[in-house]
Amino acid sequence: MKRLLITGAAGALGQMLRERLAPMAEVLRLSDISDLGRPAKNEEVFTCDLANEEAVFDIVADCDGIVHLGGVSVERSFDQISPANLRGVYNLYEAARVNGMPRILFASTNHTIGFYKQDQRLHASDPVRPDGLYGVSKVFGEAMARMYYDKFGQETAIVRIGSCTPEPKDWRALGSWFSHDDFVSLIGTVFRVPRLGCPIIWGASKNDAGWWDNSAAGYLGWEPQDNAADHLDRIVSEVPRPAKNAPVAVYQGGSFTAEPIHREKK
Amino acid sequence: MKRLLITGAAGALGQMLRERLAPMAEVLRLSDISDLGRPAKNEEVFTCDLANEEAVFDIVADCDGIVHLGGVSVERSFDQISPANLRGVYNLYEAARVNGMPRILFASTNHTIGFYKQDQRLHASDPVRPDGLYGVSKVFGEAMARMYYDKFGQETAIVRIGSCTPEPKDWRALGSWFSHDDFVSLIGTVFRVPRLGCPIIWGASKNDAGWWDNSAAGYLGWEPQDNAADHLDRIVSEVPRPAKNAPVAVYQGGSFTAEPIHREKK
Amino acid sequence: MKRLLITGAAGALGQMLRERLAPMAEVLRLSDISDLGRPAKNEEVFTCDLANEEAVFDIVADCDGIVHLGGVSVERSFDQISPANLRGVYNLYEAARVNGMPRILFASTNHTIGFYKQDQRLHASDPVRPDGLYGVSKVFGEAMARMYYDKFGQETAIVRIGSCTPEPKDWRALGSWFSHDDFVSLIGTVFRVPRLGCPIIWGASKNDAGWWDNSAAGYLGWEPQDNAADHLDRIVSEVPRPAKNAPVAVYQGGSFTAEPIHREKK
Amino acid sequence: MKRLLITGAAGALGQMLRERLAPMAEVLRLSDISDLGRPAKNEEVFTCDLANEEAVFDIVADCDGIVHLGGVSVERSFDQISPANLRGVYNLYEAARVNGMPRILFASTNHTIGFYKQDQRLHASDPVRPDGLYGVSKVFGEAMARMYYDKFGQETAIVRIGSCTPEPKDWRALGSWFSHDDFVSLIGTVFRVPRLGCPIIWGASKNDAGWWDNSAAGYLGWEPQDNAADHLDRIVSEVPRPAKNAPVAVYQGGSFTAEPIHREKK
Amino acid sequence: MKRLLITGAAGALGQMLRERLAPMAEVLRLSDISDLGRPAKNEEVFTCDLANEEAVFDIVADCDGIVHLGGVSVERSFDQISPANLRGVYNLYEAARVNGMPRILFASTNHTIGFYKQDQRLHASDPVRPDGLYGVSKVFGEAMARMYYDKFGQETAIVRIGSCTPEPKDWRALGSWFSHDDFVSLIGTVFRVPRLGCPIIWGASKNDAGWWDNSAAGYLGWEPQDNAADHLDRIVSEVPRPAKNAPVAVYQGGSFTAEPIHREKK
Amino acid sequence: MKRLLITGAAGALGQMLRERLAPMAEVLRLSDISDLGRPAKNEEVFTCDLANEEAVFDIVADCDGIVHLGGVSVERSFDQISPANLRGVYNLYEAARVNGMPRILFASTNHTIGFYKQDQRLHASDPVRPDGLYGVSKVFGEAMARMYYDKFGQETAIVRIGSCTPEPKDWRALGSWFSHDDFVSLIGTVFRVPRLGCPIIWGASKNDAGWWDNSAAGYLGWEPQDNAADHLDRIVSEVPRPAKNAPVAVYQGGSFTAEPIHREKK
Repeated sequence: MKRLLITGAAGALGQMLRERLAPMAEVLRLSDISDLGRPAKNEEVFTCDLANEEAVFDIVADCDGIVHLGGVSVERSFDQISPANLRGVYNLYEAARVNGMPRILFASTNHTIGFYKQDQRLHASDPVRPDGLYGVSKVFGEAMARMYYDKFGQETAIVRIGSCTPEPKDWRALGSWFSHDDFVSLIGTVFRVPRLGCPIIWGASKNDAGWWDNSAAGYLGWEPQDNAADHLDRIVSEVPRPAKNAPVAVYQGGSFTAEPIHREKK
Repeated sequence: MKRLLITGAAGALGQMLRERLAPMAEVLRLSDISDLGRPAKNEEVFTCDLANEEAVFDIVADCDGIVHLGGVSVERSFDQISPANLRGVYNLYEAARVNGMPRILFASTNHTIGFYKQDQRLHASDPVRPDGLYGVSKVFGEAMARMYYDKFGQETAIVRIGSCTPEPKDWRALGSWFSHDDFVSLIGTVFRVPRLGCPIIWGASKNDAGWWDNSAAGYLGWEPQDNAADHLDRIVSEVPRPAKNAPVAVYQGGSFTAEPIHREKK
Repeated sequence: MKRLLITGAAGALGQMLRERLAPMAEVLRLSDISDLGRPAKNEEVFTCDLANEEAVFDIVADCDGIVHLGGVSVERSFDQISPANLRGVYNLYEAARVNGMPRILFASTNHTIGFYKQDQRLHASDPVRPDGLYGVSKVFGEAMARMYYDKFGQETAIVRIGSCTPEPKDWRALGSWFSHDDFVSLIGTVFRVPRLGCPIIWGASKNDAGWWDNSAAGYLGWEPQDNAADHLDRIVSEVPRPAKNAPVAVYQGGSFTAEPIHREKK
Repeated sequence: MKRLLITGAAGALGQMLRERLAPMAEVLRLSDISDLGRPAKNEEVFTCDLANEEAVFDIVADCDGIVHLGGVSVERSFDQISPANLRGVYNLYEAARVNGMPRILFASTNHTIGFYKQDQRLHASDPVRPDGLYGVSKVFGEAMARMYYDKFGQETAIVRIGSCTPEPKDWRALGSWFSHDDFVSLIGTVFRVPRLGCPIIWGASKNDAGWWDNSAAGYLGWEPQDNAADHLDRIVSEVPRPAKNAPVAVYQGGSFTAEPIHREKK
Repeated sequence: MKRLLITGAAGALGQMLRERLAPMAEVLRLSDISDLGRPAKNEEVFTCDLANEEAVFDIVADCDGIVHLGGVSVERSFDQISPANLRGVYNLYEAARVNGMPRILFASTNHTIGFYKQDQRLHASDPVRPDGLYGVSKVFGEAMARMYYDKFGQETAIVRIGSCTPEPKDWRALGSWFSHDDFVSLIGTVFRVPRLGCPIIWGASKNDAGWWDNSAAGYLGWEPQDNAADHLDRIVSEVPRPAKNAPVAVYQGGSFTAEPIHREKK
Repeated sequence: MKRLLITGAAGALGQMLRERLAPMAEVLRLSDISDLGRPAKNEEVFTCDLANEEAVFDIVADCDGIVHLGGVSVERSFDQISPANLRGVYNLYEAARVNGMPRILFASTNHTIGFYKQDQRLHASDPVRPDGLYGVSKVFGEAMARMYYDKFGQETAIVRIGSCTPEPKDWRALGSWFSHDDFVSLIGTVFRVPRLGCPIIWGASKNDAGWWDNSAAGYLGWEPQDNAADHLDRIVSEVPRPAKNAPVAVYQGGSFTAEPIHREKK
């Protein structure tokens, strides 16, 4: 690729990918509403509010691929989520449509299906059950991606990210962990395959205790290599076992299911 | 019921239901952003912008049931759709949550699945395939309803309305027609059953050529009585048969699938 | 048929069928542990404890068909359920096996699946979820029937009876009602078809609000004719609507799900 | 339609349709290898060996629709089946392709799935299980139809005809009967709908004891009106009940399953 | 765990687990109707007839976990199977319910589904097809477990044990083998996971030629490590290949399907 | 095995198997319409036109197993395909039936389902979608195999061969590659298992990017060992990436889907 855009590049995953994806494109274009520091060689840096249509058109122009991490990624108020996660997603797809339709990886989340229980095996085609306003906003984004694919042929990899951390940190992560290496290899696959389509992909490593069946996206040929079970001993010895009725042991979305609706103080 | 709220009561369906639902509650509370005329006896009339949180709390207070028709119901620009169909839906559910969780009928649409072809039979659990920004906004609303049900127990009947007209008007309506009588009887059922849950219900009559399998909502006991096939002779003789590759003959969403993205002139 | 055996003929259903099935066979053989009164013309009357192997062999001998209603049909202690519903069922199948394998209608119950919720549509192939010891005993009986079919070719109609009363008596019965006429017509079908096999049949009328999909047994050609919805107005006006979280409104097994384990006083 | 071709018009079904379909087109073109008698007004009559490519091109030219009944329709030797049912079908599709692709109704058969048992409910998507060389030849024809649809857009209604007789004649027909009226109404539907596609349609009336689920073709809006169960009393009184293990009581294909391979004497 | 109960500890599997599970709990409580020998350090030994309610309450008291192997595990007469496998299971669940509901591993069997053919792939949700009275008794036990889970929250791992032997001993075991190591690791998993629920788990190693899909229990994170195919050469060279129509080659339950009903001599 | 017949032994796959299968039988009988060269020790060589019934009976006589590769294996005219692929298959099955029913491996093809898209995961039970006359002829062969199994018990392994080449040669082969080693091991399995039945087996290696789910044939215990992904780097660097809308990137059948109907010049 000539130019790969990473939105939300100042966030935790953004920083990791800024480093790891450098070899994947001649130019890495980074955008965030927060400070991104000084560009490295081969980097372009943009400050961008995703809710600003013009700004989004600017960052998308001339890109061959987009890793869209930008927006709110935890439970927040509607006022906080709406600008980037609703309007911002619309802006991104419109910008892509009029700029040659570069392939997009859309960072969705397991919180689109967080209210399923941990003893249920899910396929990409199962109905959504978001666990909060954040999850609802990502359902909106997934629907936007699908509509642009059906109407215009815009390709997107919808990645429902699990628990993307350097190591699995708790009992729930035995099912939901998504290693950095596996995320990076998935991105490589997404931008390499001749035809992507618009699959929903479970962003998770090949965890023994995983809940998600990725066979619908099997045609991509992506095979995660890491397994949270390799960290089982550490978790057993270091992390208290949750009660069997704790949300974090019951629901795939874990503690998000127990969050209240956040409302602005007035 | 003591007080039933109809939002979007000035629209075509709203006017029809204003008349038909009068016997269903002691007071019919009507709201719209447009003029609703003078209240009849037993009517309360509110002018309300659904994007205005306070206004929405006012109309929801003291209601026992809500028929939520309000918002944009055709393909429009994001700026036109967003206030009522995104923020407005959030406002409505928050208002319901803090006002005793009256049962809600949410008017969704077949345009959440408009890109399925007409030779495919759909179940309520099939993935969405919206056919435009309007369809995407309704996917958002459906997700909001589901989240409030899973998190708080708020009951909603999500009704994916087909072609709700006095009579089926074209070839596509042989599959998608939803008669006024059937809509009214569905509303009666929704507010009568002891337990509603949060089903997705196909809002269509029992058309011979229907595409939608309502068995997942069968427990409600609602049985539509009308059948577009009773109007077949008229349609055959009066309405030109579309070409086999015309969007209106190919897709369940019909001509919506061929609409461009509407953008504001600047 | 020459001789049709009805076990449990002194129970409520047994008495009804004693009258209604008389035209179906030259001789009606009736058995019960309770008093059956004086035999009518063309009746044979046996007092029989189903737990008594010899007695069961006696009543089965020379029969062409068996309607097995005998045993406990409500929630009771294990000591009360076990003799007739466990050993008794074994006795019946052994007796049938060595007596020419007359076709059997086995009265099972919706309480084999009582813990499914009322918003779930069930097929005959769905896993059991019994709602008490009675339901567990009927799962045992169904398994016995299936085993004798697979091993020996013994045919059985396993009928999971819903609410078999002259009229539907409450809100739950809108889904579960099984009219006497429909039960009688089912029995006629079961003993008429050239090949029965060993189907699980939902014993319910064609209720608008039914939960059970009988398509797996469709090959029998039995079509129930009654519909609890025809009694809707009466129920709405006479029977208080249950709370949405009451077991009778939540579970297909209704109040049985809330029964404790009955234990003998000692 | 201007000109509708019926192949195999001298056979039993052909003669019936010759009479019944007359009002459906300005000209009825009839072809058969056997004598068709003198053409009525508005009829064209062709003697045609379906294995003869040129002859087939001649009969297809200038037609708007084709009802393809031609070929062998019972179990015969490979030498007898092959010319019309293999080469003949290829000839027909090539002729259609180069002659404007008139819509085709292809008369397939339940003998493509004859080895399924009568207690199994089938969908159009279930794998084939032909019950003889005749059934195998029809699987070939169905595959040809599907290939021409996928490759060229040629539309075909693949109709798996059950037991198409004036009245149901035996116990098996309680499941498989296809009344003449229902066949005629199906043909009307096939040539009326704006978009046909290439569905597999079970050619059967709405028999209470039917085995075949037509929901995949539901979008056509065809609803059979007849029911073999209306003839139940006659069959019970006049037709001996088959033994439970007789092929005609076990398999959907009935006695065809017990036919040997027919081989030519040499 | 403080105290782990193993019932049926004098049987073949019981002896193996007595040795292998010692490290898993501070105290291993062993019970059997047969002699268990002298307790090792950290062992408690009980002689117990499972049909004796009081005795069962005694062994269950103060346990944190139960591995329930007790009862008859081959085809026997109803009189032999009933005490431990029917009443005994009821006794165990009642004892657990009133003693703090320790987690239970219930040793069920592949003979609950023994009449499925070896070319069919089974999921935990497939209907049972027991191959004898023993299999029927285990269906009863599985239903009891499920009912206590739905009604009281009692957790059970229902393990349908295949062929649990040190090495696979015949051709059928290429599909059904369950190595001792894999059983032990499964037990470790069952008592370690935060939330068990009430899954049906296929007790089999990861055999290339396995019939059983364990994905429904995948959330537990148990991955068997052994594979009967590693013993293929030995079996090919030492064990005669069964005829293709022998029960042991046709049915998953193998020779059990050909057992008669065992009846007591009188 | 005593005598294993390979038909089509002069073709590319035939030559490979002639070498690789030598150890599998005492005598390798080879047949082809083309020259097979001189027989090696332990080889028998037959020139045989598969359309010739007598000749086929000759080659089948006295064989214990058959690997049927014979016939046309690319898109050709109907006249070229018909003799070997239609009549030839019939001849083979008749010859097998009257010669002790030796087990058959029938070389079918992915072109029976070539019109499925590459983002669809297929099971053996999915409906066929052939991509040309060649694919249609193989659907015919598969149906013949199934009919002889249902009617006579003749066992066949229907192998839908993917891209069987020494190494994967293009992007499509990342999904469809079938290594020679894996084909050989499959043949070993097919002739070793006690009971084969009549499974459809996807002839493909365990490619990361595979489209085909072989679980329905899992009972055989065949596990492919090769993976086209091990050749990914070479393909990426040497083979141009196809356009996302090229048939070879869209359809499982690749370029076959774009072939015209081949017709003889006259």
